[in-house]
Amino acid sequence: MGKIYVVGIGPGDQTMMTEQAKAALSEADVIAGYKTYIELVREAYPEKQFYENGMRGEIERCKACVELAEAGKTVALVCSGDAGVYGMASPLLEVAEMAGFTNVEIIPGVTAALSGAALLGAPLSTDFCVISLSDLLTPWEVIENRLLSAAKGDFCIALYNPASHKRADYLKRACSILQRVLPKKTPCGYVRNIGREGCEKKVCTLGQLQDEQADMFVTVLIGNSQTRIAGERLITPRGYQL
Amino acid sequence: MGKIYVVGIGPGDQTMMTEQAKAALSEADVIAGYKTYIELVREAYPEKQFYENGMRGEIERCKACVELAEAGKTVALVCSGDAGVYGMASPLLEVAEMAGFTNVEIIPGVTAALSGAALLGAPLSTDFCVISLSDLLTPWEVIENRLLSAAKGDFCIALYNPASHKRADYLKRACSILQRVLPKKTPCGYVRNIGREGCEKKVCTLGQLQDEQADMFVTVLIGNSQTRIAGERLITPRGYQL
Repeated sequence: MGKIYVVGIGPGDQTMMTEQAKAALSEADVIAGYKTYIELVREAYPEKQFYENGMRGEIERCKACVELAEAGKTVALVCSGDAGVYGMASPLLEVAEMAGFTNVEIIPGVTAALSGAALLGAPLSTDFCVISLSDLLTPWEVIENRLLSAAKGDFCIALYNPASHKRADYLKRACSILQRVLPKKTPCGYVRNIGREGCEKKVCTLGQLQDEQADMFVTVLIGNSQTRIAGERLITPRGYQL
Repeated sequence: MGKIYVVGIGPGDQTMMTEQAKAALSEADVIAGYKTYIELVREAYPEKQFYENGMRGEIERCKACVELAEAGKTVALVCSGDAGVYGMASPLLEVAEMAGFTNVEIIPGVTAALSGAALLGAPLSTDFCVISLSDLLTPWEVIENRLLSAAKGDFCIALYNPASHKRADYLKRACSILQRVLPKKTPCGYVRNIGREGCEKKVCTLGQLQDEQADMFVTVLIGNSQTRIAGERLITPRGYQL
């Protein structure tokens, strides 16, 4: 019987993968994933067999991985960032469970909240929330309630999928919801194309953030009541006496 | 002038470090950190100079790193998990700012929420919160408000520092606070010594969790309203039609 690794490959830069993730890709007969992520690893593993498909093809992809593994193959299903956070670990485990296939190992990776925070300084040094603004799988009312709950809890916040072609104004909508609780001067920042070509970052306030142009390659960081802007960085103090 | 890398080394297992983190440790003249974390890397870098101290020595440690860097050394300040999440990135940037030292690079790593979740299946597949139960630097009222806000937002939750010698009953206290909002049957799990010797995991309900023995080496995962127990794993469905 084969095996399935669900592998978090980090933001994209090969140097931000763990040794464990690289070992899984090296061991695999087949590397499967969303076509954009396959492009991130294809060059490094030219001798491998690949299974790639597009958005909305997630369940088909999981079923293909299980069929390949049942046929004796070792499969590495790649995810950008972490394997679990908005990743394929959950759907793969559900599909594998239906097929009665249990030989699955989840290999974690550096999710964009962490890699984005590192580029901006230390915005997520204490309790934080990760929230996706995509309402493809989550009703907007649930997302809105989570934004308000995160603000009321004085959490630092990382926003994923802040916008797309179809959701052009979602970051602006999220900012106005957060401003029901948080002051306009709340320090924020965002990073585009983390660990990839065209990587850029910006620090601003929540009031300014709502007018920034976001897209699906942007990760947004929002500070808590203690966060401050220090030059081009964000710092959320942990509370140490300096 | 020297340079300071603040490096997230992951849970402890060398294979869970990123190539970027290893490169920073290799480049460093001095590796600094909490003594327990230094023990995790000392063997792999026998030729290095080390600066280590204990708990409560964080600011002294940061000041030593800045002094070494000002003297021209390349310093790698190691943190378990990520460099930012309850890590040294924040205090180091504050101390460096006071000294006017700016040549600092933060290198992210796999934090325990992600490595713990991977061992338990896919509990953090959608929006989640990370909350530390340590009230050393955060007032308990703030922690309590964050627990309630996370529960009201139907977030998946990762709890860090669930207990210590002095805080033996904190996990029980957190569970009773969460049960004001969440049902006793909410699927939970915890992992001890992730990526280290004696690594163990358990899946249970929120009602059972309050009676489990936690310590500072335990990371707790709490599901949202959609999370289910699947054998020895936790699965939080993302909402795909299977």
